[in-house]
Amino acid sequence: MIIIVNAVSGAEKERKFSDLVHWIESQGLKTHISRGDFTTIIGVVGDTMKLDPDQIRSFDIVRDVKRVSEPFKEANRKFHPKDSVIEIAGGKVKVGHGNFAMIAGPCSVETEEQIIGIAKSVKAAGANMLRGGAFKPRTSPYSFQGLGAEGIKLLLEAKKETGLPLVTEIMDIKYLPLFEEVDVIQVGARNMQNFELLKELGRTNKPILLKRGLANTITELLMSAEYIMSGGNENIILCERGIRTFETATRNTLDLSAVPVVHELSHLPIIVDPSHSTGTAKYVKPMSLAAAACGADGLIIEVHNDPPHALCDGAQSLRPEEFADVARSVQIMRAAAQEVNAGAETPLA
Amino acid sequence: MIIIVNAVSGAEKERKFSDLVHWIESQGLKTHISRGDFTTIIGVVGDTMKLDPDQIRSFDIVRDVKRVSEPFKEANRKFHPKDSVIEIAGGKVKVGHGNFAMIAGPCSVETEEQIIGIAKSVKAAGANMLRGGAFKPRTSPYSFQGLGAEGIKLLLEAKKETGLPLVTEIMDIKYLPLFEEVDVIQVGARNMQNFELLKELGRTNKPILLKRGLANTITELLMSAEYIMSGGNENIILCERGIRTFETATRNTLDLSAVPVVHELSHLPIIVDPSHSTGTAKYVKPMSLAAAACGADGLIIEVHNDPPHALCDGAQSLRPEEFADVARSVQIMRAAAQEVNAGAETPLA
Amino acid sequence: MIIIVNAVSGAEKERKFSDLVHWIESQGLKTHISRGDFTTIIGVVGDTMKLDPDQIRSFDIVRDVKRVSEPFKEANRKFHPKDSVIEIAGGKVKVGHGNFAMIAGPCSVETEEQIIGIAKSVKAAGANMLRGGAFKPRTSPYSFQGLGAEGIKLLLEAKKETGLPLVTEIMDIKYLPLFEEVDVIQVGARNMQNFELLKELGRTNKPILLKRGLANTITELLMSAEYIMSGGNENIILCERGIRTFETATRNTLDLSAVPVVHELSHLPIIVDPSHSTGTAKYVKPMSLAAAACGADGLIIEVHNDPPHALCDGAQSLRPEEFADVARSVQIMRAAAQEVNAGAETPLA
Amino acid sequence: MIIIVNAVSGAEKERKFSDLVHWIESQGLKTHISRGDFTTIIGVVGDTMKLDPDQIRSFDIVRDVKRVSEPFKEANRKFHPKDSVIEIAGGKVKVGHGNFAMIAGPCSVETEEQIIGIAKSVKAAGANMLRGGAFKPRTSPYSFQGLGAEGIKLLLEAKKETGLPLVTEIMDIKYLPLFEEVDVIQVGARNMQNFELLKELGRTNKPILLKRGLANTITELLMSAEYIMSGGNENIILCERGIRTFETATRNTLDLSAVPVVHELSHLPIIVDPSHSTGTAKYVKPMSLAAAACGADGLIIEVHNDPPHALCDGAQSLRPEEFADVARSVQIMRAAAQEVNAGAETPLA
Repeated sequence: MIIIVNAVSGAEKERKFSDLVHWIESQGLKTHISRGDFTTIIGVVGDTMKLDPDQIRSFDIVRDVKRVSEPFKEANRKFHPKDSVIEIAGGKVKVGHGNFAMIAGPCSVETEEQIIGIAKSVKAAGANMLRGGAFKPRTSPYSFQGLGAEGIKLLLEAKKETGLPLVTEIMDIKYLPLFEEVDVIQVGARNMQNFELLKELGRTNKPILLKRGLANTITELLMSAEYIMSGGNENIILCERGIRTFETATRNTLDLSAVPVVHELSHLPIIVDPSHSTGTAKYVKPMSLAAAACGADGLIIEVHNDPPHALCDGAQSLRPEEFADVARSVQIMRAAAQEVNAGAETPLA
Repeated sequence: MIIIVNAVSGAEKERKFSDLVHWIESQGLKTHISRGDFTTIIGVVGDTMKLDPDQIRSFDIVRDVKRVSEPFKEANRKFHPKDSVIEIAGGKVKVGHGNFAMIAGPCSVETEEQIIGIAKSVKAAGANMLRGGAFKPRTSPYSFQGLGAEGIKLLLEAKKETGLPLVTEIMDIKYLPLFEEVDVIQVGARNMQNFELLKELGRTNKPILLKRGLANTITELLMSAEYIMSGGNENIILCERGIRTFETATRNTLDLSAVPVVHELSHLPIIVDPSHSTGTAKYVKPMSLAAAACGADGLIIEVHNDPPHALCDGAQSLRPEEFADVARSVQIMRAAAQEVNAGAETPLA
Repeated sequence: MIIIVNAVSGAEKERKFSDLVHWIESQGLKTHISRGDFTTIIGVVGDTMKLDPDQIRSFDIVRDVKRVSEPFKEANRKFHPKDSVIEIAGGKVKVGHGNFAMIAGPCSVETEEQIIGIAKSVKAAGANMLRGGAFKPRTSPYSFQGLGAEGIKLLLEAKKETGLPLVTEIMDIKYLPLFEEVDVIQVGARNMQNFELLKELGRTNKPILLKRGLANTITELLMSAEYIMSGGNENIILCERGIRTFETATRNTLDLSAVPVVHELSHLPIIVDPSHSTGTAKYVKPMSLAAAACGADGLIIEVHNDPPHALCDGAQSLRPEEFADVARSVQIMRAAAQEVNAGAETPLA
Repeated sequence: MIIIVNAVSGAEKERKFSDLVHWIESQGLKTHISRGDFTTIIGVVGDTMKLDPDQIRSFDIVRDVKRVSEPFKEANRKFHPKDSVIEIAGGKVKVGHGNFAMIAGPCSVETEEQIIGIAKSVKAAGANMLRGGAFKPRTSPYSFQGLGAEGIKLLLEAKKETGLPLVTEIMDIKYLPLFEEVDVIQVGARNMQNFELLKELGRTNKPILLKRGLANTITELLMSAEYIMSGGNENIILCERGIRTFETATRNTLDLSAVPVVHELSHLPIIVDPSHSTGTAKYVKPMSLAAAACGADGLIIEVHNDPPHALCDGAQSLRPEEFADVARSVQIMRAAAQEVNAGAETPLA
């Protein structure tokens, strides 16, 4: 960490400066000081992760503070250079380091017939995991809130029928017991910084699908992963699902550059959600292909047998036959990406 | 609600169109249809709050959907034209309709001495409520997370000493029993769409301070208030605390226009947080004055007796004597705002 | 266009309502009125492109206005269903409808040796056009501003040597005479809404590369194209180059969804600039592959023989051998995209 | 400037490191090097304004670069601690250091009767300058583009009648001769980074009203001022007019914090445009009061005698009597701000 201090001169300033240096050293850190005419720079060496830049800025002689190293450790590729591979359902499905997650299913579980029907058709089309919402975060209290515990039960039926591992969202710690047989617990975008929930999930050993918040930076996404990992659970799959910008042609703006950025900074796999980010069924295919091309470790796609009568998010749902086309096309694209990687010195992911 | 449909012609399209109309009417709503050459418009009349525009967009003949009325009811000024006044601590402090909340205190409670000292000095300077964090949402798991239950205890000591009602943040439902003697429960920006928490708070009768999320629109803020109100708790104070934009000179961008917008759309009071929005102590005074001038119903300001050694957010904390200057200045500005309102046909708030 | 009016009742309101209707009809448009209990809706039929929604909103009985059709005509796919193909240098290079632009070269022209050297190497690697800046828009007046007229001369030398058509940026109308032998005139992001410049370019018949502004929506990009097209010049290639958001891991946020959105709304080709959007050389390859995969009509990539000593934007420049790897990889990806399209009912672009 | 370099070891790295140091020193700058275990830091001392951080980032051993001093000189308060006062029309009106600009008038000049009528009424209400657009930047080529030269003539008529100095927008250098008798030349938000225009205006001695671009940071606004000032023209008034964010309740998001930030970084005055930023007449008054309260040096407000029939931006225009109310209220608020400043150690502006 580098601390930029206004030029120090005069007894009062010298006292404040030495106060600051002592305070830093009292945290068990070392300082290197280089004095210039207009500014003095303090280099701080040691485990600076616990230092809060905001706190240092409140010393009135400090002009600015800059972190030199990332504020995360467990999620950091520097300390874990090899790609993590997340094993799901006892290794039945793997994600990361060339293992691709193809997760599909409806926004909400509605009926047994619906979820089993969709599960069968996405499996036939090439999905290797089933998604479906039992607890639904909705902007309006008057919108359908999901079937809750009953929805989880129906998802488990669909798992039994098809063998597909399940991905479903948790909205509060108190529901954790219901997720015993769920294979991957999803933390939605709105809960990415629900730190109490993250801490609790850090005490489980379930794979976690952690979605990026609408206003969160990639660093903050990795810090939220760090909350879970520092609790002991390293089974994390990150998910880019669009950020909020001024553009209204798509519901959110899919930030695909997050894929190579995460691959550089972290060893964790990252998948892409083209359904929630674009909000429109017709853009799901091109963005799925783009995600596969830039090295994403998987996709999570909404599929419904009857989108107009879906109880939520119908506008972005593919019909099963459309999903089959996307899945087939993504295969072609991934083969091309492998050919590209084979010829490259440094493979993409 | 207005539904814009691509021009209908041909048997297939007519069938889809009549499907759509039947489906809407099956929800107990009425339709008015006006057919044009290129587009047909369906006006939907009735309680459209439960209709989800996204679901309607998934009918493939639909081009667009537009809400005509706001999607909130309890928080809506149309159905409740008079300003709400929120009563705190049995009416000791009121907020709204000309009653101004001046909430001050440290980011985090640290020690008994610290919180009682600050409480006394902010009271002397004109604060009518005390803030202080016991549970702290922090981006990093390695940062100080607050004193928790012990912090609440220290806050209650400070309340006993000074008589100031307390405002403090809840981070999870499970902590609710600890908030029994807390006067105002704060829902932080990161939890604005933690719907399970909102529903639970709707079942209490505590005043709630609901902060706007970093990426949330004003309508979404009101929808989150609606979650609490539709559960039966109408004691809500909204808070503008800055949104995320590309500008980095301030930590967030304080959206002061939210004050007149909320006053137009809703009867609920709205206060402003100049500390978290700007992130810098020296900008707190000008933005406090601006907030008072445009009709805000209060301010929530961070004050610390020793900002450089504060355990969080020191950079944005005022010293007690600086807060006293702000409080005095805000008084002058509020008197001017009252003079302006006295001479106006339509007062600001 | 649909105008939503507050319910009309009372003589005063009826008068205002009939004022509004007469005013609309006086513009040569027709109205369809449907009266409801709470709102009245006016459907406006005819050429509504000249109507300004803001003007209509200023009638105080109007609650809201919604366009039903896009506000652009010449650029609109509805009136021109087939993809446009832009012919450059007398048809030597084509862009659009399966014809891919691979534009490469340095941020700035520096010396004859530099530009000719780079031109040769990018040609060998598969580029079909040469880019290079002679006039450089720089945030600081103290930064290198480009060689100006001399730079154009050096670019023409490089064209003579290699036969590659030239793409270079114009910054003011007065320089137009210098662009006589330039093949494609680039309008940079900062000039996307320099309407005087757009009008003037509409009077030429040069192909124009129009870059999206940092804060501009896709609709605004198409409106700027419309400025040029309505002047008579239909040779426009659009370019997505990143928008401004809160994320700082990349310089801007590349909005790749703009590719399928533009392809849906317009017949004009759209290319992608992975260099300026990400701002970092190592992210250029993955984002180039993603662009090719989702149907972009080309790429514009910065290449420098000695990035650390480039006079601008070195951080995002590829070395020639890195560009060769990208070009080869993009070929593989485009072949895969063609295979995908061959099997699809509706091809991507 | 501080350059953060990955730890240097090995002959190859040492060579690259010494290359970098030599290159910096060859620009006439001095370096201070401090080597750590994981990173090495180069402090660069001297006139670093010409150094481009992006260029330094392209050295592959460089991890990051941080400016320690602002990249502007002429606009910098550090080198010019006293507030600038801009004199208009030979000192008839002054702006800055307690002198308040109250600029009012229509979006567009339409007829002689209209502009003279509005000019008289805004003068009577307390305006000290007249605004009015002759050249109008419009998103659509089909919208009214302003009266051009004829509009300037009508504005000069209104100036003759009322004595109010004129503020009007320039859209291209070629129109400069028409602005001879215009008192303040406005550079609109879309032209804030039209650097050719800025350079040319730097060669005049006219007061310039420079509006912040929709996607531009405060630092970039000051850099654009620097373009004009480094050309020799120091008569610049800055203007905050809203930035683009995801919020749609107002047309743009007025960033009022820009007022104290600019006052800290620069000696130039800054005024606020509540009309374009909010886009809605009813929000103009509260935001005008807020601007006056936080120390803005003036306001620019749209006023039209007949908003519904204004040829542009009617929705945000005040009627003359509404403007009179705003002007009176702003006076009250400014008196309160002066009372606040009188009692403060450090006045706001």
